[in-house]
Amino acid sequence: MKISARNALKGKVKQVTPGAVNTEVVIEISPGVEIVSIITKSSGESLGIEVGKELYAIIKSTDVMVAVD
Amino acid sequence: MKISARNALKGKVKQVTPGAVNTEVVIEISPGVEIVSIITKSSGESLGIEVGKELYAIIKSTDVMVAVD
Amino acid sequence: MKISARNALKGKVKQVTPGAVNTEVVIEISPGVEIVSIITKSSGESLGIEVGKELYAIIKSTDVMVAVD
Amino acid sequence: MKISARNALKGKVKQVTPGAVNTEVVIEISPGVEIVSIITKSSGESLGIEVGKELYAIIKSTDVMVAVD
Amino acid sequence: MKISARNALKGKVKQVTPGAVNTEVVIEISPGVEIVSIITKSSGESLGIEVGKELYAIIKSTDVMVAVD
Amino acid sequence: MKISARNALKGKVKQVTPGAVNTEVVIEISPGVEIVSIITKSSGESLGIEVGKELYAIIKSTDVMVAVD
Repeated sequence: MKISARNALKGKVKQVTPGAVNTEVVIEISPGVEIVSIITKSSGESLGIEVGKELYAIIKSTDVMVAVD
Repeated sequence: MKISARNALKGKVKQVTPGAVNTEVVIEISPGVEIVSIITKSSGESLGIEVGKELYAIIKSTDVMVAVD
Repeated sequence: MKISARNALKGKVKQVTPGAVNTEVVIEISPGVEIVSIITKSSGESLGIEVGKELYAIIKSTDVMVAVD
Repeated sequence: MKISARNALKGKVKQVTPGAVNTEVVIEISPGVEIVSIITKSSGESLGIEVGKELYAIIKSTDVMVAVD
Repeated sequence: MKISARNALKGKVKQVTPGAVNTEVVIEISPGVEIVSIITKSSGESLGIEVGKELYAIIKSTDVMVAVD
Repeated sequence: MKISARNALKGKVKQVTPGAVNTEVVIEISPGVEIVSIITKSSGESLGIEVGKELYAIIKSTDVMVAVD
């Protein structure tokens, strides 16, 4: 399946923290660069998310803001 | 200013494509890893976005989906 | 590729309206039920979106609000 | 009240799963076609969401991605 | 129609800037406090948005970030 | 830090309700005008959110819908 979201960053799961409804997933996309994702717990289970798993962080370009110092 | 969004990825602007209302900004966050951001044209001008500028890509963790092969 | 977004509604493209930066896609997901999607023009081209094409409308569950009369 | 979101899909609540803060609502918009919505628990209570209730799934067109096989 | 979004701020349209696809609407919600909204041009026309019109700015609570100095 | 989001509304925290994963923050942006924000619990703690604190509600203009009666 190919999706219209412009950003698909390959990475590896570094940490998984399941809550009651949501699961927090920390993804390392390059050495020292991490992205935090919050998905529903059921999605996390259905995708088999666990530490070490390779996956993609998918982000729509309109959801990326920029900030300058 | 410190913001509640969990992801603030440092990077450098690689390409700027202004449209009529929106501007597309390509940000290199590590060698070979790029994020595409679409902001309003007025925000891009107000922040002085141009190729080579250092900035942060700001993304809420709930806007990061994950996908597996 | 399998994605964490909970909603993947199968449908057929009924209308495509390209703008300068964005493309509007009208998707029929069942007889008389349509969903409008706005994606970047480059995504639309890269995915080969055209009238009649079968595809999925992907929506995160947190992006679905509800309203009552 | 008339809202700027382009998608207002009429449906019937099929399942309600309240959590501590959020409530998951499964809406059937046509036979066999369901949309999952996550709203705050207080919104769910204030709108009187319960199985069988008729409502609308409201989605901004920019929140609808597309994917192809 | 009553919607699950937690924020419905009453205001008056102060400025409307139509683009090719989108329309920017500046809404004054109290003296000196303005909110900028970008909606599709067709939504703006369908809702009859014009300077002076009373309306509501609708925002999901999960779309509101906070920042501190 | 200066961010591309168009809306930065100054206000004062009126109420904080921490959940297991998320925290709900009620912000008064002018007398009688409040905005509800939901952020992750860890963001709330890291920013030191508490009743009476001055902060900004940050909202992307594309996340602001409009509704008319």
